[in-house]
Formats: sequence, C-alpha cells, structure tokens
Amino acid sequence: MKDRKLLMIPGPIEFTPEVLQAMGMPTTSHVAPNFIEAFGEALERLRQVFFCPNGQPFVIAGSGTLAMDIAAANLVEPGDKALVVNSGYFSDRMGAILERYGAAVTHVRAPTVGDAPALEDVEAALKQDGYKVMAFTHVDTSTAVVVDAKALGALGREYGALVVLDGVCSVAGEELRQEEWGIDLVFTASQKAIGVPPGLALVVAGPRAMDAFHDRNAPVGNYYADWTNWLPIMEAYEERRPSYFGTPAVNLIWALNVSLDQILDEGMEARFARHWRMSEAFKDAVAALALQQVPVTADVAATTLTAPYYPDGVDATLLGRIKKAGVVVAGGLHPAIRDRYFRVGHMGAVSESDILATIGAIEKGLANVGYEFQPGVGLAAAQDVLTP
Amino acid sequence: MKDRKLLMIPGPIEFTPEVLQAMGMPTTSHVAPNFIEAFGEALERLRQVFFCPNGQPFVIAGSGTLAMDIAAANLVEPGDKALVVNSGYFSDRMGAILERYGAAVTHVRAPTVGDAPALEDVEAALKQDGYKVMAFTHVDTSTAVVVDAKALGALGREYGALVVLDGVCSVAGEELRQEEWGIDLVFTASQKAIGVPPGLALVVAGPRAMDAFHDRNAPVGNYYADWTNWLPIMEAYEERRPSYFGTPAVNLIWALNVSLDQILDEGMEARFARHWRMSEAFKDAVAALALQQVPVTADVAATTLTAPYYPDGVDATLLGRIKKAGVVVAGGLHPAIRDRYFRVGHMGAVSESDILATIGAIEKGLANVGYEFQPGVGLAAAQDVLTP
Repeated sequence: MKDRKLLMIPGPIEFTPEVLQAMGMPTTSHVAPNFIEAFGEALERLRQVFFCPNGQPFVIAGSGTLAMDIAAANLVEPGDKALVVNSGYFSDRMGAILERYGAAVTHVRAPTVGDAPALEDVEAALKQDGYKVMAFTHVDTSTAVVVDAKALGALGREYGALVVLDGVCSVAGEELRQEEWGIDLVFTASQKAIGVPPGLALVVAGPRAMDAFHDRNAPVGNYYADWTNWLPIMEAYEERRPSYFGTPAVNLIWALNVSLDQILDEGMEARFARHWRMSEAFKDAVAALALQQVPVTADVAATTLTAPYYPDGVDATLLGRIKKAGVVVAGGLHPAIRDRYFRVGHMGAVSESDILATIGAIEKGLANVGYEFQPGVGLAAAQDVLTP
Repeated sequence: MKDRKLLMIPGPIEFTPEVLQAMGMPTTSHVAPNFIEAFGEALERLRQVFFCPNGQPFVIAGSGTLAMDIAAANLVEPGDKALVVNSGYFSDRMGAILERYGAAVTHVRAPTVGDAPALEDVEAALKQDGYKVMAFTHVDTSTAVVVDAKALGALGREYGALVVLDGVCSVAGEELRQEEWGIDLVFTASQKAIGVPPGLALVVAGPRAMDAFHDRNAPVGNYYADWTNWLPIMEAYEERRPSYFGTPAVNLIWALNVSLDQILDEGMEARFARHWRMSEAFKDAVAALALQQVPVTADVAATTLTAPYYPDGVDATLLGRIKKAGVVVAGGLHPAIRDRYFRVGHMGAVSESDILATIGAIEKGLANVGYEFQPGVGLAAAQDVLTP
C-alpha cells in the first residue's frame, strides 16, 4: 500500500504534479530569457487571479509573514493611525507588525473567538477617528473565520482608509475581487490556495496603495521589504527585461507560473464554486458526525478550511489516529482554544476524492478513540453535496 | 544533442540531482516528524559547514539580501557606529542596510575597483573611533575580489567590534573558519556554494552576536528578520519539537539538508581544496587566453568565481556566443566597469568536467568574435592543473 499521507492542513497543501515537477527542474539563471518570460507571465496572471487589473504585483522570496511586513512597512509611516479588524491570531500579528513600523493601532475585536467583528463596530471606529490604514484577515487560519471582505472594503473606502486584506488563507480559494471591492492591497503566501510550495510572498497593490507609497516622507523601515528596491525589478520582468536586486527564488517562481496557469485554466468562477462545494461537503460531513465548529455561524465560516471542535471526551490524540488512517490534519492554533479543536485545509489543488479520503480517515480516527456514531454517515453527507 | 545549458554564473549554480529531487518531492507539513528531523539536522550541519560549533544558526525564507537585513537589523540600534570594509557593490549595499537600521556608517574603501581595502587602513579606522559593528564582504560577487577574512576577524576582535562577514559568495567554497577566525556573524544565501536553489537566507551568529542581540534596548527595526520571532523556532527544530512562527520553505529546507549532507560527506578540507583547484585551473586558462582579470593580484582573487575582462575589441556579445556553445556565464555587475568584463561562477557542485566545458565554450565564443589565440590553449592550461 502507498504510505504517503494526504496533506490536508491549512497550508502547505497538496500540490499538482506539474507544480512539483517545476520545483525539481534544473535551476535556470534569474536573467535567462525563458525565466524572464515565466516571471513576467506570473506577474500578469497574479493580476487576474487577484481581480486587480490596475494593481502592481510583487513576488518576493519569503513566508506569508514577509508579505504582512511588505504591506505594513511600505504603507505606514511613524505616527500613522491604523485600524485592525481583528478576527484572531493573524490579526493580532498584523497589529504587532503595523506597530513595529510606527503605526498607532486600534483593534475592533470580534465579540467571541469564532466570530467576526461586527460591521457596525468597524464603522463606529472609522467614524470616531481618521485612519490611514484599515487591515483585516480575510480568512483567519487559526479559527476558519471569514469576514465580509466586500462590505469591509466598501466601509474602508467610504472613510478614506487604505484597505489592506490579508489573503494568506483566501486568495485563489475564497471569493475575492480586489479592485471591484475597493481593496487597496491584498497579500498571500504561495503554500495556500495559490498552490505552490512555501517560500514566496505575493502582494498586489492597487493604485491608491502605490500612491501612498510614492507620497511617503519617511524611508521604509524594512530594507528587504522596501518597494523602492523591488518596484523596478517587477516592472522589468513584466517588460521582459533582465534586472537584478536580489536573486529571485527561481524554482518557486517557475512553479508559481505553472500553478497560476492551472488556476486560470480552471477559471476563477469555477474555482470559487469548487471551493464552496468542497467546503459544503466537508462541513456537512462534520455536522453529520455531530462535531461543532469554531466559527459560530455558517455566515462566518470560510470555504478554504474547516475547524471542528473535538467531541466530548476526545482530545488531540485523535490527530494521530487520523494520520494512521492516511491523512495529516492540523491541531488548533488560537491560544484561547488551542487544545479543543483541529483544522482541515481544503483548498487549491485538493480534489473531491481528497475530501472523501479525509472524511473517511476522520471517521476511522473517531471510531478508534471510542466516539459513537454511525460509520459512513459523514461520507454520505459529503457525497450528497458532491453528487449533483 | 542535449540542449540544456550549463549554468556557470555566480549563483544560482549547478545543483546535484539529489538536491533537485528533494525540491520536487511532495511537500510535507512543516511540523511533520520527518521534516522536523531534517530541519534539525540541517541546523546542526550548518554549524559544521560554517566552522562555528557554538553558533546559533538561522534558516529563513528569503534571498541573500534578507540575510544582510537579518544581520544588520538584529545587531544594530539607532546611533550605533558601524565600519564597512568596502570591496564593491555588495559592501555598498551592506552600508545602506546598516544605515536603514540607524547606524552611522564609515567606509574604508579599496584604492581601486578590483582591489581589497588595505588592512592598515582598516586598522587606522578602528583606532580612530569605536565601532559596534565591522562588516565586510568575504567575496564580492561583483568583482571576484576576496578579502583576508582571518586578518579582518582578528582586527575587528582586537578593537572590540562585532565582526560580520557577508559569505554569500564564499561559504562552503572559499576557506572560512568562523569561530577560529573571530567572526561573530556569517551569512549566506542558498543558491551559491551551499548548493540549493535560491530562496533561503542562512545565518550563523556566534555568542557575542547573540549577546549583543539580547542586550538591545530598541526593538529590532524589521519584524520579519527579528530573532525574537525566530530564535525559539530554530531552538525547537533543533530539539526536534514542533513549533510555528512563519511557515518554513519546506522543499528548500529538505534540499538544504541533502546538500549539507553531501558537503560534509565530501569533507570541508577536501571541498576547499577542490574549489582552489577548480579556480586555479580556470584562472590559468584565462591567463593562457591572455585575458586580464578584475582582481588586481592573485592575492585578492576569489576561488569561487572568476571575473575576466573582455579582450580589446570584444564586448558583451561574447556572452551570447558562449551560450550558443552551451554555457551560461554572467555579465558585469560593478557599475564602474559593468560593460568591460564578465563573470564565471565555479563553486558548489560544479565538477572539473564543467570547468573544461566552460573553458571550451569561452574559447569557441572568442574564436567566433574574431579574437586571435591558439584554440585549446586555455583547455591545456586548465588540464595542467587538473591532472595531478
């Protein structure tokens, strides 16, 4: 029997064979004509995937946290006010990063773990003070909570804030239309729904974000993240000219271009629909198994991952049993409830077969720790959604 | 005929099949037990490759410029004085980065492009003022100039400065013994002699560097580079415990561990000797072809790359001819002489056969542009060194 485990954590995820093949190809020069072409194409395709035809894409070697740094360091000057719409662990981190670059940060928090901050509370905060930046986490990887990005984009724009969306666990999975929704900057990391092994920070900045950058008085606090260094490089690759600032992560960028091609080949609308369907199937299975979820209502539950609570009497040892059944899922991350729940990513190249395999392994794991349920009930609920 | 070109630029370089295979393997979770083991091993092996048994290694997704940022941001506080022993393009960059994090930077410059700064000038500067940090580029990738790292380490230590060595084009190729030579911090990038595709910043900080970090008053100016975030993670991987700050570049780290294993299997002394031999062979060939080199004397010529001037009447079109003959070499980078020379990397997994193939292609290119010489004279000179 094959012993490779299916990787169903919220990133890194399962990648396509073509993406992995690109990873393992002999490395080209970063100024080889065919690499310049691939990098240029990847930048053009990012605009399409982000739905931001007038945006400036940046692809820089680093983790998702670097992407957060890029957003904050380039937009914020010491003394600027920033509002964080806080839905969990990664919103806290965004606040800390904004503060590192000199912002005075106000948080609008969700009433409880697993909920999104109320739009009225966000509007009240925006009314009360002038904010240069409003940042929020589209999908919080720690809780599987999704916020209403369209409504928040409109609110931020209405009150004149630069709207920054952390799309690490959303871009190319959760529905997101950057320009139409008035989002000034969206960032993500390669290893999530965009479908490339970890190591690339991806940012698309709209015209208002670029204007704010160009209008800065203070130098950017972070040298490596500074658009002053990278903007000419991104422009050069898109114009198919060789250029150099730092050596790009060549293999990862080849892989990125392959994945973006596959994403656009599927089509963004079809992709959003597939993510919704996989999520529905998985969440219906979780409900059929009588497990609660961290998101308090379906409204605030993301489609890229699911965060089920352990049933009474079951703890994190369940994860080992699920793994033994062939699937790797992730433990809890939010400090307040870390040991009470687990997380399953279902995004990017993940297939409907993977969804069934994962539910099957969870059922086996639950049976193994003595949880009582009708075997197959989760699978049947999922199949109901997956079978048209 | 195979149409893949040999990649002989000063990074990215040729990688081993085993390293590329690791790049293309299905991505594991960053907390999978076998990945934790590989990451932990890689950290231990970095200490051996850097000759820094008491150092703290950091492996962070990013380019070599991030490694520079990590060094400067963690060691420097606003108002600190820093001395840059400046041998070219990357020393200038180090100065700019140190200034970004608040240092007052003094440069001791080489008398001319292609030379190293004089040790007397460095000592005079150290005598004249107290510096918290003294930084230098071991091998400047723009000029192929190597500085005397051992002597500079001793000088810096004597005058109480933290000694920072930019080893981007040296570590695992050029002789370097971090701890014995009194170097407090060494950094490099994955795509050079350490033999892994681009995307990892590698840093080993000795005890004095870590003490300086722990004794800081000001927060680190760069969030992503901040050791406060990464130190517990590196410690956890080395203790084989799962942990999380930012998602590590999983495939690159698998590849790093493979490459470090291969490096230590060759043995550091044998590796230094092989690099010296390949460099001698290549430089003798260049001399036999009557090409001058950017480094003004053999004393200041690096072993990891060679920077020959074009002969009279020949320009950068030569590079296209060399490529047509099967080998990719790099153009000039130092602004003062950019169009007058080219660069050939010969480090890491590069073999003696690759050296001969490269000389052969350069000979063909030169013949093609009408340069007069006895065909084979370069190959014969190289073979003289390579044949014991």
